Amino acid sequence: MANIESRLTALGLVLPPAFSPPPGMVLPFVHVRRIGNRAVIAGHGPQSPEGPLAKPFGKVGAELSLEQGYVAARLTALSMLGSLKRAVGELDRISHWVRIFGMVNSAPGFVQQPAVINGFSDLILELWGPEAGAHARSAVGMAELPFGMPVEIEGEVQIAD
Amino acid sequence: MANIESRLTALGLVLPPAFSPPPGMVLPFVHVRRIGNRAVIAGHGPQSPEGPLAKPFGKVGAELSLEQGYVAARLTALSMLGSLKRAVGELDRISHWVRIFGMVNSAPGFVQQPAVINGFSDLILELWGPEAGAHARSAVGMAELPFGMPVEIEGEVQIAD
Amino acid sequence: MANIESRLTALGLVLPPAFSPPPGMVLPFVHVRRIGNRAVIAGHGPQSPEGPLAKPFGKVGAELSLEQGYVAARLTALSMLGSLKRAVGELDRISHWVRIFGMVNSAPGFVQQPAVINGFSDLILELWGPEAGAHARSAVGMAELPFGMPVEIEGEVQIAD
Repeated sequence: MANIESRLTALGLVLPPAFSPPPGMVLPFVHVRRIGNRAVIAGHGPQSPEGPLAKPFGKVGAELSLEQGYVAARLTALSMLGSLKRAVGELDRISHWVRIFGMVNSAPGFVQQPAVINGFSDLILELWGPEAGAHARSAVGMAELPFGMPVEIEGEVQIAD
Repeated sequence: MANIESRLTALGLVLPPAFSPPPGMVLPFVHVRRIGNRAVIAGHGPQSPEGPLAKPFGKVGAELSLEQGYVAARLTALSMLGSLKRAVGELDRISHWVRIFGMVNSAPGFVQQPAVINGFSDLILELWGPEAGAHARSAVGMAELPFGMPVEIEGEVQIAD
Repeated sequence: MANIESRLTALGLVLPPAFSPPPGMVLPFVHVRRIGNRAVIAGHGPQSPEGPLAKPFGKVGAELSLEQGYVAARLTALSMLGSLKRAVGELDRISHWVRIFGMVNSAPGFVQQPAVINGFSDLILELWGPEAGAHARSAVGMAELPFGMPVEIEGEVQIAD
């Protein structure tokens, strides 16, 4: 089994299937856009292993605790890894993480966005290690996110030749 | 006439002239930054065909309906296409759409940002088709946008050699 | 002395040391990610010359005036230049500025985000001039930012061979 996927299995983690939007909602974009060695990644949210968006919905600092926000960011990483696997075939082909833009649906006064998005970064670094997994990152507070998701993350990775 | 522009004409659409900021406002940046084959695009808002920002202003879900937000996103696409034409000379030189970051000035509780930004994506796909027009996208809710614009969108495209 | 750094010195400006997060806060990402000639830059905030985040904290349009927001954006540029110097060795190696994404912690109704982020752009253009310093930019209003920072800016530059 490939390297990254065997680590996922060892951690007991499962990649969800492609996200199906709610009935009546059309999402006319691709989850991963390949341009040469770049893979530019659309905004992803926390997906349950079965496919739908993971609960709870709402704002971190109100409906969700910091700890629940961290879990949502980790589930967002799994959703993104599922999209990347479908797009590039094999997660081991990701040679460098590049950029992560982490958006937290934030209750008024909630200012610990970095601690939430660490749920994403910690998993990437656990899987890819400190060299390939290193990424530039922002973690910021949004007024609203689609469907009331607590977290949305977009980014970019580099694909080996 | 070039391919993309003949489609614009067939749709009855007109690209606006370069945006002039309100008196006293200096915007010291370029609308499109070329780096090799990449064209990185600054944040654009809905422009009327004559040039000024298009009305109405305000937040989608309050001052604007979802349908008005969709129209604003479509006008934002036309503003961006005007900038791209001035920067690269010919819209047909855009070989791939890459990334779209769609920001919606959102009233509290408004969570249909994707349906708003579809006003942008639908036009790009109508003009470039599903291969060249495919793009990674986020659609998210902002607390405020400059001048009270309802929508602001930035992105990146690839230019053919 | 190198070109850009001699200009900084002539302006009486000092680059701060690496940012140390508050106790208990882990920031598991890199401030600059190099991929070929690209340097992708994480979100930075206003840093005082000694290293900690610069005061005041809060939202522009409430706790901070527009003028204080402009100063915060200028201090954010110095923080980013410090990271870039540590990452690439010499600021003169930055051949092109590419993309700036300027986020303003915005009080309700504050819509002058571009005038705030001009504190960043004006300094970059003063140092690099209108060709190398040109950048695509967005300037937008966030609901919250980490630690209550008034400004956070991420971006990308091109490094000479």
